[in-house]
Amino acid sequence: MINSIGLIINYRKKQPVQLAQEIVQWFVKKGIMVYAPENDGTVLGLKPDYIIPELGQEVDCVLTLGGDGTFLRAARLMAPYGVPVLGINMGTLGFLTEIEVSEIEVALQKLIRGQYYLEDRLMLEAKVLRNNKIIYSSAGLNDVVVTKGPLARINTLDVHVDQQYYTTYKADGVIVSSPTGSTAYSLSAGGPIVYPEVEVIILTPICPHSLHARPLVIPGSKTVRINISYQQSESMLTIDGQNCFDLLNGDEIIVSKAPYQVRLVRIKEHNFFSIMREKLKAEGSRSYE
Amino acid sequence: MINSIGLIINYRKKQPVQLAQEIVQWFVKKGIMVYAPENDGTVLGLKPDYIIPELGQEVDCVLTLGGDGTFLRAARLMAPYGVPVLGINMGTLGFLTEIEVSEIEVALQKLIRGQYYLEDRLMLEAKVLRNNKIIYSSAGLNDVVVTKGPLARINTLDVHVDQQYYTTYKADGVIVSSPTGSTAYSLSAGGPIVYPEVEVIILTPICPHSLHARPLVIPGSKTVRINISYQQSESMLTIDGQNCFDLLNGDEIIVSKAPYQVRLVRIKEHNFFSIMREKLKAEGSRSYE
Amino acid sequence: MINSIGLIINYRKKQPVQLAQEIVQWFVKKGIMVYAPENDGTVLGLKPDYIIPELGQEVDCVLTLGGDGTFLRAARLMAPYGVPVLGINMGTLGFLTEIEVSEIEVALQKLIRGQYYLEDRLMLEAKVLRNNKIIYSSAGLNDVVVTKGPLARINTLDVHVDQQYYTTYKADGVIVSSPTGSTAYSLSAGGPIVYPEVEVIILTPICPHSLHARPLVIPGSKTVRINISYQQSESMLTIDGQNCFDLLNGDEIIVSKAPYQVRLVRIKEHNFFSIMREKLKAEGSRSYE
Amino acid sequence: MINSIGLIINYRKKQPVQLAQEIVQWFVKKGIMVYAPENDGTVLGLKPDYIIPELGQEVDCVLTLGGDGTFLRAARLMAPYGVPVLGINMGTLGFLTEIEVSEIEVALQKLIRGQYYLEDRLMLEAKVLRNNKIIYSSAGLNDVVVTKGPLARINTLDVHVDQQYYTTYKADGVIVSSPTGSTAYSLSAGGPIVYPEVEVIILTPICPHSLHARPLVIPGSKTVRINISYQQSESMLTIDGQNCFDLLNGDEIIVSKAPYQVRLVRIKEHNFFSIMREKLKAEGSRSYE
Repeated sequence: MINSIGLIINYRKKQPVQLAQEIVQWFVKKGIMVYAPENDGTVLGLKPDYIIPELGQEVDCVLTLGGDGTFLRAARLMAPYGVPVLGINMGTLGFLTEIEVSEIEVALQKLIRGQYYLEDRLMLEAKVLRNNKIIYSSAGLNDVVVTKGPLARINTLDVHVDQQYYTTYKADGVIVSSPTGSTAYSLSAGGPIVYPEVEVIILTPICPHSLHARPLVIPGSKTVRINISYQQSESMLTIDGQNCFDLLNGDEIIVSKAPYQVRLVRIKEHNFFSIMREKLKAEGSRSYE
Repeated sequence: MINSIGLIINYRKKQPVQLAQEIVQWFVKKGIMVYAPENDGTVLGLKPDYIIPELGQEVDCVLTLGGDGTFLRAARLMAPYGVPVLGINMGTLGFLTEIEVSEIEVALQKLIRGQYYLEDRLMLEAKVLRNNKIIYSSAGLNDVVVTKGPLARINTLDVHVDQQYYTTYKADGVIVSSPTGSTAYSLSAGGPIVYPEVEVIILTPICPHSLHARPLVIPGSKTVRINISYQQSESMLTIDGQNCFDLLNGDEIIVSKAPYQVRLVRIKEHNFFSIMREKLKAEGSRSYE
Repeated sequence: MINSIGLIINYRKKQPVQLAQEIVQWFVKKGIMVYAPENDGTVLGLKPDYIIPELGQEVDCVLTLGGDGTFLRAARLMAPYGVPVLGINMGTLGFLTEIEVSEIEVALQKLIRGQYYLEDRLMLEAKVLRNNKIIYSSAGLNDVVVTKGPLARINTLDVHVDQQYYTTYKADGVIVSSPTGSTAYSLSAGGPIVYPEVEVIILTPICPHSLHARPLVIPGSKTVRINISYQQSESMLTIDGQNCFDLLNGDEIIVSKAPYQVRLVRIKEHNFFSIMREKLKAEGSRSYE
Repeated sequence: MINSIGLIINYRKKQPVQLAQEIVQWFVKKGIMVYAPENDGTVLGLKPDYIIPELGQEVDCVLTLGGDGTFLRAARLMAPYGVPVLGINMGTLGFLTEIEVSEIEVALQKLIRGQYYLEDRLMLEAKVLRNNKIIYSSAGLNDVVVTKGPLARINTLDVHVDQQYYTTYKADGVIVSSPTGSTAYSLSAGGPIVYPEVEVIILTPICPHSLHARPLVIPGSKTVRINISYQQSESMLTIDGQNCFDLLNGDEIIVSKAPYQVRLVRIKEHNFFSIMREKLKAEGSRSYE
């Protein structure tokens, strides 16, 4: 039973905001309360009581209005609470958004009647260890990326998988990707396409110095440890292409499967292959908000 | 308890034959019977009673003497019977062979004392369907490959994963690889390195016509169906680079996880990453008998 | 002044044959004689006097009706005589064919009025040396390819550039490509796109064993020598995906720029980039008859 | 006849500085004057008269002591003046440095006796156009690179070749490389190896969004124009991995062959292929100071 809904939208664009306002009215009429995080709620003109940072504690389900980028933001916010997320696509064809604008009415009816199923997706958790202290921690649905700064030099990154030394990348950086993220940044760096339900983590070096550095697929149960052993310029950690954190020499980045998953609401039959075919032909791999 | 041993060797080369003859003596002294398949046994001069085609029914363990190619042959023969295989390396560094020649004495002592563990590896099973009949069936540890004939033209291959249409490759062919085979042919065609214990199947097109054809990693529980929809010249099915079968237009090749696994005997600590690093630097990816 | 025309067509397909018959009538009315090689002329029903194997000695220009494959065949036949070739496209979008069917009337008018320019393209010449004798010689517009037989094993190929040792490929084979051929087979094996007028030769290994084997671009003035040093199964030489020759162990394949070029008739402005964009998006790289 | 020598060194490292000081003495004894640019000369303790910014106007030849990075810096400074550069290698094996430390004595003897030849290499010139004004101009021997900032988002770059529209890259950036630079950054982004004397420019996208974006080789006579049409975060121009310039939305970067070349001093036979083989096996592609 859905009593309360969260809205996470691409609040910088006009159309998602307008549509979200209509959706608020639609739910209110049904007696369902609508909440939103700060920026989203303010733009939508929600009353202060309905603008809450800890959305996950309050709502039964979250709708996103925007592209895959908006969905990624919602996924990071909701996954720790196990709150399902339904993406309404207002951009180009998305890997994550489920519903087109023309299908909203039918989809929301099904949603409140419980006519849907949930598809769980592996999330990645990243921690930064500096001087033996965890100084940063975040989770992402697509990828955890360590890159060099904009000067066109290379990073030297020692990589361990669990306790075993794997390799030292001299490269622009490395992408640690979930299966969901395999069709995003990792693909454009030469990584394989991985079927969503496979429990693995993918390591894809970006422009590696050594020609025998190749994408690696490891069990989802393993932990990846990346040490910034030598760094000619500044480095940076980026989660899902959205959250950033400045790294220093000697930092260790620890990436593993998160203890929770993202729950995708599926209202219609989902065909990964047909979305992939269209997506790759039409416009390539990466999607942003 | 090991009462009987099978020997599978690279019987075309002098050194494996000589070493195998010494090993036969060593086991006989210990009261352990030694069997071999036809070609191997004949070259070794075994008595007729010890030359048996159905080695797997008789022996407790198989030793291979040769390179990874010899191991692949043994794996295909032994896997259906669950008989463990221990590879003694007589070629260049191998991914599959466990023991160097200098380590044999110690290794065999440990083997007969039971001081080892087993590592199971996913096998692939391939069937060819022609006019609704299965006309060929085989299994492989590394890969099942559909290729065109030597004329430099392309194959048109429709690929389904379970019942879902995946793509149509216009390509020289396609490699369906196990994790074990990911460091062999698939790697040289652009596929990812996959950690051995991940339960997946990898599809890697060979020289695809379309630039958005990319390697795909799917769950090991799924079945791949390849239809030779149009064929400008002859096609061929190859298992582990060793077993071949001529294909015709309209044939369907069905590849899935075999119902059994290969059991690798591990006598010392196995470090996949360190073998991979050495192997890729030294001589690239593929190994043959 | 054009007094005689040659027709080279995809004579296995109905439409090119029908169109060619109309074109014969059109030229005959203008007092221009039409010739064809044996297969083409027979299918078209030309009188014996107009069916000649050495077309290049007789005609002022050749029209092709078919796809890029038909054009490649015409190019090999005409280039030694310097006879210009105009391609009429009857397949999918082509890199080589200039004129769409709807544009024929206008194009032929321009052709006989001399309203066109010629674009010369580098041809490759291949020779096979066995026991110090040249036992095969051919030329191609796209590529000269050495491949292994259909068994999925590897070739070992020693490559020299002029007198310098370059590398030893352990691979499925190697593609020696002209700039024109860079968008064909070479591209699907990972080679770069090369602008047509650059005078270079491109070497692209097919599925190389060693991960540091990469495509190489050398000056068009250099000679490539490929030695089949060791061969696990039969090898084959293929020119433009059409002409084949069986190779043996120890054969040397010598590839260099041919002493003549193909002369492409250009009737309208040719935009390499826009053709390439459409072609790569729509259907990938390779074209055949 | 060599009357004056310039020294350009990796002045941040101890060994090149020590060796350079010995070399200064050696030349002074021979009556040859030694000059250096500001930083290099100060570290070496040269008298103020011998520290000159416009080294190229004064000296007959320049020696570099360091790695390929030091050579690249010297090349940019000397090429406009046509002053030959001889690289003494004090790092790992270099593509550009000619002489090992053990060979210095013999090499310098040959140099002052004129026993050498010159090898000219194509330089790239880059200009940044903002509001119709050239606001930045520089030249490089290896590459001109446009990259996004460290946030893992993409750049949208419209690329023209001469007046023809080529493509729009959605990518991390694009590398415009000379043949000399083809074995550096471009190679690690998937570009081909180009033989040094070929007169071409190579365009290699970095992690392109679209899977049909591929490396392109164009004639050295053509001009590449890159427009930053839309930019989600800051962009940057980098020359030879050393000189940087911040770019803004709407900037146009114009890259073409420079009107001058770098003159490499060759004292011994240079074998591009053998250096390349060693380099790629040993440590991959990129070299820095």
